[in-house]
Amino acid sequence: MNFEEELTDKVQDIEQLLRRYLPKEEGFQRTVLQAMNYSVLGGGKRLRPLLMREVFLHCGGENEAILEPFMAALEMIHTYSLVHDDLPAMDNDDYRRGRRTTHVVYGEDMAILAGDGLLNYAFETAMKAFDTASGTEYPRVAGALRVLAAKAGVYGMIGGQVCDVESESRQEVISAEKLLFIHEHKTAALIEAAMMIGGILAGAGEEPVRGLEKAAYDIGIAFQIQDDILDVTGSEEVLGKPIGSDERNGKQTYVSIYGLQKSVEDVEGLSREAIALLKLTEDSFLYGLITWLIHREK
Amino acid sequence: MNFEEELTDKVQDIEQLLRRYLPKEEGFQRTVLQAMNYSVLGGGKRLRPLLMREVFLHCGGENEAILEPFMAALEMIHTYSLVHDDLPAMDNDDYRRGRRTTHVVYGEDMAILAGDGLLNYAFETAMKAFDTASGTEYPRVAGALRVLAAKAGVYGMIGGQVCDVESESRQEVISAEKLLFIHEHKTAALIEAAMMIGGILAGAGEEPVRGLEKAAYDIGIAFQIQDDILDVTGSEEVLGKPIGSDERNGKQTYVSIYGLQKSVEDVEGLSREAIALLKLTEDSFLYGLITWLIHREK
Repeated sequence: MNFEEELTDKVQDIEQLLRRYLPKEEGFQRTVLQAMNYSVLGGGKRLRPLLMREVFLHCGGENEAILEPFMAALEMIHTYSLVHDDLPAMDNDDYRRGRRTTHVVYGEDMAILAGDGLLNYAFETAMKAFDTASGTEYPRVAGALRVLAAKAGVYGMIGGQVCDVESESRQEVISAEKLLFIHEHKTAALIEAAMMIGGILAGAGEEPVRGLEKAAYDIGIAFQIQDDILDVTGSEEVLGKPIGSDERNGKQTYVSIYGLQKSVEDVEGLSREAIALLKLTEDSFLYGLITWLIHREK
Repeated sequence: MNFEEELTDKVQDIEQLLRRYLPKEEGFQRTVLQAMNYSVLGGGKRLRPLLMREVFLHCGGENEAILEPFMAALEMIHTYSLVHDDLPAMDNDDYRRGRRTTHVVYGEDMAILAGDGLLNYAFETAMKAFDTASGTEYPRVAGALRVLAAKAGVYGMIGGQVCDVESESRQEVISAEKLLFIHEHKTAALIEAAMMIGGILAGAGEEPVRGLEKAAYDIGIAFQIQDDILDVTGSEEVLGKPIGSDERNGKQTYVSIYGLQKSVEDVEGLSREAIALLKLTEDSFLYGLITWLIHREK
């Protein structure tokens, strides 16, 4: 099986896992449950749960019963952030991945509540890991919960989103420092959560988990720079959105600040560093995944 | 010290506790931190943390170091729900407790993110209890976290809010069953969380915690019915909002469905049941608190 086939299999596996953890669409609150499920099952790379499981296996993790709730939880958090980002008061996007956004289908009020519901349900879901955790796994689940909450919050993803939204609404020319802050928080934080949680649940100690955090940071930043590169060099057909839209909107990107050449070099350098930190061999799936992420065309 | 003085002291104590647990307003994400703090420090009865601590003490709890993070967390969750409720896409309220609402001061985008931030920070805050929990307290903290998440989510508070929002936007004449669902979830669920968590952290077993849940349910429903009664019988000056506004808006309430007499009787009956379940004596503060809540004039 080549990398692409393995990737397709693993992503399909995650789709099934997500369906198992999503709520049943019943009761007086049915509409919000439908809106939550519609949002989560809208496709996507499933990058975060994918990375979480691969790191878990890479670190010798065995009991997937404590891992799976966290895989689902992290994807719920990623999804809620997109639902709220797309709202009229934020980016005001009517389409995402070729489908109508949640507020277009269910109304703005339901989209706000579906986002709230997903964030809250993510924690409910992750806490299910306590049910099957053994004595030694119990503190690992608690540790993983704390990383999940920290990386998703105002000192993680939300913090980056706030800074991004505010800079855009002020139409300010942002500094390289602020741009890095946005990328670190809005993009890298949840990748860090994915990989750290994979390690923590597998029983990795403090120092190895710090190594995972650094590797995840590199991957997150490289991933974001590649996004900015694709906005300039990509094909509209492949990307499914207009090329150069960031540039036309006057949005500062890594490429507009550092130029294309340094951007491409940095993506390479960061991914090489991540691979070295993780001590990956070329035949491992995780090696293939990181390489694919960095060289993707959409 | 009479009941009112004791209440004032205890509420002031909670205000100080909240300030200790709120984030410092610094960093590139400063605005959202300001918006979060503005929202939480807007006054209110502080009923949920108050009930949590009183039940904790009533159940023989001693280590307040594991309790306090949960008191702050629950008030953050209550506050985020108000911030999102007040949004233009929801109730569109410009004022709450005589102050401008969060979205009026900080903008709609920042209010959405401040709500998200508060919900997430609530879990971060509650998880701090793991830091000081002893071996026997560790699973109590995990149990309390699960109750917090369950009662705040789509099968708790959010579920009630969804049903309420949807019924109002459809201007439907709701059934007594649906009205009870809304009250149970939108109002009672967080009261249940408060009292159950107080008990769990104090080391109460499964059955006593179920008793606390039932008593909290009674208090929550009685509290809500009293709200509906005050909307009909209260004084505008005391309430700080127009009397009969629910009625004029064609909103179904407990009073409009069951009439004033049965409503008043039910408030009495429910509060008597709660007091019996908790085995409270008339001289206890908790007895005074429940009685005060039920007979309040605003």
